[in-house]
Amino acid sequence: MRLYDYFRSTACYRVRIALNLKNIPYEQVNIHLVNHGGEQHSAEYKAVNPQELVPSLEINGQAISQSLAIIDYLDETYPKPALLPQNPWDKATVRSLALIVACDMHPLNNLRVLNRLKEQFQASETQVTEWYHHWLKAGFDALEAKLSHIKRSQPFCFGDTVTLADLCLIPQVYNAHRFHFAMDNYPLINEINAHCLALEPFQKAVPEVQ
Amino acid sequence: MRLYDYFRSTACYRVRIALNLKNIPYEQVNIHLVNHGGEQHSAEYKAVNPQELVPSLEINGQAISQSLAIIDYLDETYPKPALLPQNPWDKATVRSLALIVACDMHPLNNLRVLNRLKEQFQASETQVTEWYHHWLKAGFDALEAKLSHIKRSQPFCFGDTVTLADLCLIPQVYNAHRFHFAMDNYPLINEINAHCLALEPFQKAVPEVQ
Repeated sequence: MRLYDYFRSTACYRVRIALNLKNIPYEQVNIHLVNHGGEQHSAEYKAVNPQELVPSLEINGQAISQSLAIIDYLDETYPKPALLPQNPWDKATVRSLALIVACDMHPLNNLRVLNRLKEQFQASETQVTEWYHHWLKAGFDALEAKLSHIKRSQPFCFGDTVTLADLCLIPQVYNAHRFHFAMDNYPLINEINAHCLALEPFQKAVPEVQ
Repeated sequence: MRLYDYFRSTACYRVRIALNLKNIPYEQVNIHLVNHGGEQHSAEYKAVNPQELVPSLEINGQAISQSLAIIDYLDETYPKPALLPQNPWDKATVRSLALIVACDMHPLNNLRVLNRLKEQFQASETQVTEWYHHWLKAGFDALEAKLSHIKRSQPFCFGDTVTLADLCLIPQVYNAHRFHFAMDNYPLINEINAHCLALEPFQKAVPEVQ
């Protein structure tokens, strides 16, 4: 199993946590999104993923892309520990938290989008940061509100174990810190973040140790 | 079962197709995203979904949001016809196609983002359209390439039946037409689109008949 990875990509970071939690051995292939004009645009990588984005997971010469599809695949083929609750409604609740990050926060703030703002609108660094923070605030406000209605016995997004929602949330919080976004208004998110980052599978997945 | 719906939202459109395919009766509550300053921002709707986005699905007074979480829930609780293949790798392939639309096309082009471009960068209508088309092209290019590598016996995204990938693709093509994006370079996508739109569950879900 081979993961096409970039240390700073929060989508890759999600997959690394899943692989670590499930103790799945894998080979890491670094695709640097900035160096060499962006290695994701090379002919070699386009053959792996025509979308020219990371991560991709390759098994026996076949690849799948999109972090949530990869994580679902890993969860199905390496079921322990489960990353989704059994009950369909609970599962949908966890998925919806994950998708707030994966659809409505991360895609608006990833590298290609920030670059596009500079190219098309000559956005300054300050304006890019303002854009970034705008979408972080919208997403975290919604997440904090949703999390406050969910019963939990441990500081995780849902229930008393790590779920897909935590796999999406923690890398997004990492990026918020990186872009100097003030997290003061999100006590629950901060508590969950601290709790998860105390766990080895998360620690081994952080960008700095790749 | 109650769907908080907006006729033009492509995320809602996906859910409507799923409900129709599975023949699930539901009550439609229209949340107009433009009228009255955007009904999704009302206190009433915020109590349903603090993210202030549609769709939401309410059952017995409890709601879930995010179209893909809703569709997964419906697929699990009303399993026929199945919207995902059984085999985990095939399932991941279908999910990854769906997520290209749901994560990397639609969120960049939805109403709140286009409005933000106008507010923050004083983007003109022409510039907004250019932005819109840029992300449509990136997404459709990748999808057409990926679809060309997939075996199928019918003009669907995968296999010989409707899957989650079709539920995401067809509303996105609808929006491309609406924003006058030229679809000439996508023969496979156009074929799949025409094939799906000939089916009643899709026809009953299109924005014009809501």
